[in-house]
Amino acid sequence: MSWISDPGFTEDQPFGPQTLPYGVVADGVAVRVGDQALLLKTLGLGKCTEFVQGDSLDDLLKAGRPVWSALRAKLREIVRGTSAPKGAELVPIDTAKLPFTVGDYVDFYSSRHHAENVGRMFRPDGDPLTPNWTHLPIGYHGRAGTVYVSGTEITRPNGQKRGSEGPKFGPSERLDIEAEVGFVCGGPRAANVSTSRAAEHVFGVALVNDWSARDIQAWEYQPLGPFLAKSFATSIGAWITPLEAFSVARVPTPPLPNKLHDYLTCDQPWGLDITITVELNDTIVARPPFREMSWSFVQQLAHMTVNGATVRPGDLFASGTVSGPEKDERGSFLELSWGGKEPFKLDDGSTRTFLEDGDTVRLTATAPGEGGSVVGLAEVVGTVRSA
Amino acid sequence: MSWISDPGFTEDQPFGPQTLPYGVVADGVAVRVGDQALLLKTLGLGKCTEFVQGDSLDDLLKAGRPVWSALRAKLREIVRGTSAPKGAELVPIDTAKLPFTVGDYVDFYSSRHHAENVGRMFRPDGDPLTPNWTHLPIGYHGRAGTVYVSGTEITRPNGQKRGSEGPKFGPSERLDIEAEVGFVCGGPRAANVSTSRAAEHVFGVALVNDWSARDIQAWEYQPLGPFLAKSFATSIGAWITPLEAFSVARVPTPPLPNKLHDYLTCDQPWGLDITITVELNDTIVARPPFREMSWSFVQQLAHMTVNGATVRPGDLFASGTVSGPEKDERGSFLELSWGGKEPFKLDDGSTRTFLEDGDTVRLTATAPGEGGSVVGLAEVVGTVRSA
Repeated sequence: MSWISDPGFTEDQPFGPQTLPYGVVADGVAVRVGDQALLLKTLGLGKCTEFVQGDSLDDLLKAGRPVWSALRAKLREIVRGTSAPKGAELVPIDTAKLPFTVGDYVDFYSSRHHAENVGRMFRPDGDPLTPNWTHLPIGYHGRAGTVYVSGTEITRPNGQKRGSEGPKFGPSERLDIEAEVGFVCGGPRAANVSTSRAAEHVFGVALVNDWSARDIQAWEYQPLGPFLAKSFATSIGAWITPLEAFSVARVPTPPLPNKLHDYLTCDQPWGLDITITVELNDTIVARPPFREMSWSFVQQLAHMTVNGATVRPGDLFASGTVSGPEKDERGSFLELSWGGKEPFKLDDGSTRTFLEDGDTVRLTATAPGEGGSVVGLAEVVGTVRSA
Repeated sequence: MSWISDPGFTEDQPFGPQTLPYGVVADGVAVRVGDQALLLKTLGLGKCTEFVQGDSLDDLLKAGRPVWSALRAKLREIVRGTSAPKGAELVPIDTAKLPFTVGDYVDFYSSRHHAENVGRMFRPDGDPLTPNWTHLPIGYHGRAGTVYVSGTEITRPNGQKRGSEGPKFGPSERLDIEAEVGFVCGGPRAANVSTSRAAEHVFGVALVNDWSARDIQAWEYQPLGPFLAKSFATSIGAWITPLEAFSVARVPTPPLPNKLHDYLTCDQPWGLDITITVELNDTIVARPPFREMSWSFVQQLAHMTVNGATVRPGDLFASGTVSGPEKDERGSFLELSWGGKEPFKLDDGSTRTFLEDGDTVRLTATAPGEGGSVVGLAEVVGTVRSA
């Protein structure tokens, strides 16, 4: 029996000792144990101690893989002990804040099902996929300064939208979610990161909701891509699950139809068998399967740096909307309501196409962990406020 | 006679007492006086002293307009004095580094001539401008982590390009420049910044060269915009000219053909009469006129934040390529060589379409200053290294 008595701290629960995600609460850097947080600055962590003294994960992100592995090993030992170590302090998790300084934020577009669904809706006469899609992981830069921690209220954005008499201005009428998996970078600044080295530059994994205003997007996105449709807010989970926790969740990615350029090939499976749950006002509306993503995070990171661009600690990149082949596996309302044409039902009897003011969206996710356990990704929750 | 004896420190020179741009040299925060730098940390600057003690402009950017105005007034007094004040130390400018921590980097597309030229080349059968262009300042997010100071060598990027038998991978064969004017943000973090308040959030102005790989761009940019074609490097001048130095350079922007939404209207002229000079290996190849830009920086900032997105100190946004109506006013090689079809001549007898290894590009710019003086923007220089 662990000295930590918390009903959520068992191996069949997402935040048991197999997970140990990192975050930052009011008192400092912490690791989540069930529904509590274990403060790190007061624990004896040997050479790792210096990296957990601040009020963010920034120092830990810079430290790199050897420190991350040593710290995780030490913490696994500590949380599995039968008596509390000197300096152990359990505190509430509800003061968790944005745990790191976001460097650059890149959003990919790596679900074939999502890209095809969007293509069918936006370009009904053409091929649903652009010709480049199967050759490279398409992505673009988002706004790092508006990445917010889970729980932050989301104000409906104003913007320009198409109107019958030219563009009109006002609150978005097609406010949407994008259920995504995000990767938090760390270790030394590097360019030309190979797929075999990419995992060394990824500290951990977190859920991301890339809030999107589809009407603003449709009017603005040609020719340079989404801008105000996305930049108002991106939500991320408060707890970053270490990449090492996913050792048994690794799966091959679905094959692509063409031969890949060498820099995108990968001799190790780096798909992840994560299943997301999307809840709207307590109704589960979708369960997007991350294992269906065509491009893995190691391919994304290799692509992002093959031109000489550097990745640095605190950079965040997200997968793009996770959608599976089934209707109830789609990670956006755009797809769930097929462009607003097919409203879907909630348990309270109401229907939705896009988000209404007051709606609360909650993303959670799990993956298989070692020994039959379950590894969790912390929730990303947000409630929509009127414009 | 000023106590500063420097042949470049006169009102008919770009870095005379009318300009006073800020930068960071090896010894700390400084203001440029001709071809020297005056260190600020050792000067008596009263209440402004605390903002110039670090090794970046970050504290000064956060301080906001009242401090910026007070500091500039104090420095104008100091540099015009006949004897050196206590603590005055002049040091070389050649150790200048990237002077601030770049938050988000946004690149606009606000030259109508440039957008029309690119549209004619890339979409010869359609309208050269997309329908949204005259209604909003189109922009997208670039990579903040690869903004480099002037003088940084630029390595030719590798990437995927279209080939006759599918995409091929290798060094870009269409490496280009984009001559732009950049705006460095400061003051309090804010959303919904009106055009009448936008100037309060802009600390100063710097030249930007947004290096671009046109072949990579052409293959990757649909549907989410430029990514690797731009993310390898963006160069910025080492000295940020304060916005206040442009008080007499303000001009109206050229009219747009349609009525603008209220949030983009502006009762003050905020175009700037800056003329850029583009040199390639000592040949002047273009003189792009910034006064021709259809969207001003206050409109760009109002647009960027109208959806609730915040702007914070250190955010950088650039104008987009500056091109005028004349052939020798075009700010990219793509336009100067008309897509590579019309090579242009250098003084050494060679010709260019796009950049060759070893080429050095230098951007400089001036604007009219008070009393017939000339206000300078510091050079952005970069030499191309092989991939």
